[in-house]
Amino acid sequence: MAETDQALPPSDQLAAMNLTDTVEKHAFSDRVLIRSIVGRPDGGAGLAGQRVRAGGWVKTGREQGKGTFAFLELNDGSCPANLQVIVDAGLAVLSKLVATGTCVVVDGILKVPPEGTRQKIELRVEKVVSVGEVDPAKYPIPKTKLTLEFLRDHLHLRARTNTIAAIARIRNALAFATHSFFQEHNFLYVHTPILTTSDCEGAGEMFQVTTLISESEKLEKELIKNPPPSEVDIEAARQVVSERGEAVKQLKAAKASKSEITASVAELNKAKENLSKLEERSKLKPGIPKKDGKIDYTQDFFARQAFLTVSGQLQVETYACAVSNVYTFGPTFRAEHSHTSRHLAEFWMVEPEIAFADLQDDMNCAEAYVKYMCNWLLDKCLDDLQFMAKSYDKGCIDRLRMVASIPFVRISYTEAVELLEEAVKGGKQFENEVKWGIDLASEHERYLTEVKFQKPVIVYNYPKGIKAFYMRLNDDLKTVAAMDVLVPKVGELIGGSQREERYEVIRERILEVGLPLEPYEWYLDLRQYGTVKHCGFGLGFERMILFATGIENIRDVIPFPRYPGRADL
Amino acid sequence: MAETDQALPPSDQLAAMNLTDTVEKHAFSDRVLIRSIVGRPDGGAGLAGQRVRAGGWVKTGREQGKGTFAFLELNDGSCPANLQVIVDAGLAVLSKLVATGTCVVVDGILKVPPEGTRQKIELRVEKVVSVGEVDPAKYPIPKTKLTLEFLRDHLHLRARTNTIAAIARIRNALAFATHSFFQEHNFLYVHTPILTTSDCEGAGEMFQVTTLISESEKLEKELIKNPPPSEVDIEAARQVVSERGEAVKQLKAAKASKSEITASVAELNKAKENLSKLEERSKLKPGIPKKDGKIDYTQDFFARQAFLTVSGQLQVETYACAVSNVYTFGPTFRAEHSHTSRHLAEFWMVEPEIAFADLQDDMNCAEAYVKYMCNWLLDKCLDDLQFMAKSYDKGCIDRLRMVASIPFVRISYTEAVELLEEAVKGGKQFENEVKWGIDLASEHERYLTEVKFQKPVIVYNYPKGIKAFYMRLNDDLKTVAAMDVLVPKVGELIGGSQREERYEVIRERILEVGLPLEPYEWYLDLRQYGTVKHCGFGLGFERMILFATGIENIRDVIPFPRYPGRADL
Repeated sequence: MAETDQALPPSDQLAAMNLTDTVEKHAFSDRVLIRSIVGRPDGGAGLAGQRVRAGGWVKTGREQGKGTFAFLELNDGSCPANLQVIVDAGLAVLSKLVATGTCVVVDGILKVPPEGTRQKIELRVEKVVSVGEVDPAKYPIPKTKLTLEFLRDHLHLRARTNTIAAIARIRNALAFATHSFFQEHNFLYVHTPILTTSDCEGAGEMFQVTTLISESEKLEKELIKNPPPSEVDIEAARQVVSERGEAVKQLKAAKASKSEITASVAELNKAKENLSKLEERSKLKPGIPKKDGKIDYTQDFFARQAFLTVSGQLQVETYACAVSNVYTFGPTFRAEHSHTSRHLAEFWMVEPEIAFADLQDDMNCAEAYVKYMCNWLLDKCLDDLQFMAKSYDKGCIDRLRMVASIPFVRISYTEAVELLEEAVKGGKQFENEVKWGIDLASEHERYLTEVKFQKPVIVYNYPKGIKAFYMRLNDDLKTVAAMDVLVPKVGELIGGSQREERYEVIRERILEVGLPLEPYEWYLDLRQYGTVKHCGFGLGFERMILFATGIENIRDVIPFPRYPGRADL
Repeated sequence: MAETDQALPPSDQLAAMNLTDTVEKHAFSDRVLIRSIVGRPDGGAGLAGQRVRAGGWVKTGREQGKGTFAFLELNDGSCPANLQVIVDAGLAVLSKLVATGTCVVVDGILKVPPEGTRQKIELRVEKVVSVGEVDPAKYPIPKTKLTLEFLRDHLHLRARTNTIAAIARIRNALAFATHSFFQEHNFLYVHTPILTTSDCEGAGEMFQVTTLISESEKLEKELIKNPPPSEVDIEAARQVVSERGEAVKQLKAAKASKSEITASVAELNKAKENLSKLEERSKLKPGIPKKDGKIDYTQDFFARQAFLTVSGQLQVETYACAVSNVYTFGPTFRAEHSHTSRHLAEFWMVEPEIAFADLQDDMNCAEAYVKYMCNWLLDKCLDDLQFMAKSYDKGCIDRLRMVASIPFVRISYTEAVELLEEAVKGGKQFENEVKWGIDLASEHERYLTEVKFQKPVIVYNYPKGIKAFYMRLNDDLKTVAAMDVLVPKVGELIGGSQREERYEVIRERILEVGLPLEPYEWYLDLRQYGTVKHCGFGLGFERMILFATGIENIRDVIPFPRYPGRADL
């Protein structure tokens, strides 16, 4: 219970603000959750008088009053705001507390600061419990304005900055919003494999996963330590076998005793075993095993070539065609040598798959999901969004509000091309030519969503020539039931389609695009046995974070970015 | 609204059962969620009279009344129970509906069946909307008792069986329980990388990820199509350069016009460029690039050797040491040639990391998390658990109830060894010798949790010699602050520790276990700058499912199992 204090609002005021007078603790720890103090609508004022233990890292610190006390801005990662902490010189060596990055745990009493200060509450320390010091001369990310690019060279420490911590909270919120949305709508979360022997789109650009190299290196080392037998060694062993064979023969001819013969045969067998071991070892060759001039993948871990997945869609369809609505949420990989601000070698994708549903249902689901995430962020991360708006993209909150509330525009690909052609006639210049049949370029997508409509746009029914074989062929035989969701700031956020559920049609399409049937037999089985109308889409999770935060480079919205030449930690 | 019907309970009875009289639909689809009918406490009786559309797969079907109608047991994956559907011969060719695996969508009216039938409700079909047929002669998993082992050869269809579908729902529930638990306790979900250049435990047995092989194969093909220049080609090109050089010289000597000289120099430059291109191409060699006899990893995608992660712990610690409480939940990999029922090459792990917390806090968190999952399952998946109890492990529900309610036993490693030694004295035989210093074998763990205590046991403070370098050294200098959670049925479910936060101590430990310092510099930085007491653990997600379901083989509780020689789909 709070001690009585002049600054405390009366309890009916507390109730009106929907506040309790107890602070929340970090789970499984005795320290307070700083968010539960400074994140309150009253800024924490209603908690004055309470004794708490707080732990966190010093954002900024300074000695004051000629070294008689220090101000510390303490942050524990629970929210962007800091708790102001005041430590008297008698409690600790103040110079060891004030460096940015210092970790401190303190016990103290919450007080309302003097009038005129920004803070609504501060912590007067009674005891310094522990200190993790920082030598500011050596600390790689001391308090100064650091660029996001610089921070990418210090992945292990960058989460201590306001920006990366805010992105971590936003990313966490979007991940849980994703699970909550699909669980509320009765989708099952299915873990599709990372290691795969299927190539989703026949696209290539996959990372190979192997133990052949490490095993050949191991063998190489072993052969150096323990060289293989020479032809002379083997000849000698052969000689021993032949001598022992001769000995057995002679004993038998001489009708020797059974025990003598048995002993001699045993000797012979030992010699034979030794020979076969030597012959086996002499065949060992350093290097990756080959057969007919090609790498012998039967010797690899999975007895065939294996890759990192580029999408869980094909696999998750096996579950959609068994238990209806499902989704995946996991890492996917592309071995593209793209050095852009929009590409990663490892990124996370959300891929729902809906049974008994068509392209309209797919669009409805995509729109509902994006709106749900926007509302979730506005509801749970407003303080972090305000930080992003202040520091990176002043429009990000308005953009989230707009997307959360406005119905998405839905136009066919053909209409989209007409609009782009009109724009060209009106003087708009694009780098890529506009005509029916092209794959829309990012500049086209951005024009539609940012200039023409200024809101999210779903483009559907694309020419079949630019889309994957599994998308459902429309009755015009020219287009497929595909759809892309375009949003301001990032362009394409979602790509999806109704899947071709007709066995003969999809078989034809696989052959038409020049793929072999054999690797897709299992996929065809889903159409051959109890086929069902179904659809799905993929959302690039990092793109959603770019959209929400206004951050420009995708490398800054994933904790450990992987791209050509870099995979730190 | 329900039509009035004799079998309808009066509305006050409905209210008492906490039932509404509307059926729930599948999201983004017009068909009903079968669970919302047959999963009601009244078995669906209260819904009689309602018109619904239902879609799903036929579990069993049979023609009746000399072919005048058919019974179908329809399942849509939303629950283990089926909806009984009755179709009259006038509505469809019945023989095309009754095969197991057939997909049907039907419109009809819910009716209470005649007294004496098992069902509380059935659907009288008015219209067959669509049918995805099955040829029972070809269907790989027709209705017969199929072994789990057989089903592993049909991964793409096995989710259509009752067992694999029930496991999918239980796995989904445990995954969402995991997120809910950590989110409720203010942990941030952090996506640690799958691709890594760090080896968490220096353990080896990692999968290598590379583009060197595919790029060398690409080059090989290219060189066959377009052979590299011969020495003669290059000599000829050199000749051209020398001739053109001579021509320039002569023009200059003859004081030719500026334009003549410029043109001549341009010709020379073209020849030089051609020569250097040929020289470059002549260096191309098929095969994996080498340098000093070793593979040249500077040419690999990440410019160094890269692997699949074995644990996200070290990386997630960078976030714990910045924003306090965090967790990972993702796939991890081991390239072990283990053919046991307990090992996978790809499996999912949950790894929380708590800042400002010690081993006691770690144990509290682990116990609370396991209990939370047990309660979640009992609350949300009781029908699936009942199916597992009936079909695989009659004790599984009691086991979950026991673990959810009983405090876990906590004993030190030293006490555990004493108990095992006592057991040996009492006549218990173990395959592995028991003495202080050994790593507890599975048989020892199972004895403690299943025989000695018959409840979950946490063993803590293990000898440092058998544990990883990052575990905090205890004051006895012999043990580290590690803990394992053992549960009946699976033995070790969780392994965790307080992390060594003292810079000098952990540096010493790394050297002591024979690891190089350089790859751990970033990890040491966490101790050098603002170090914090922290702890964490890892839970093998598939083990939790084995524990909950009583299934014996880990390959059956993950949708797409990967193990030596197998990575289907």
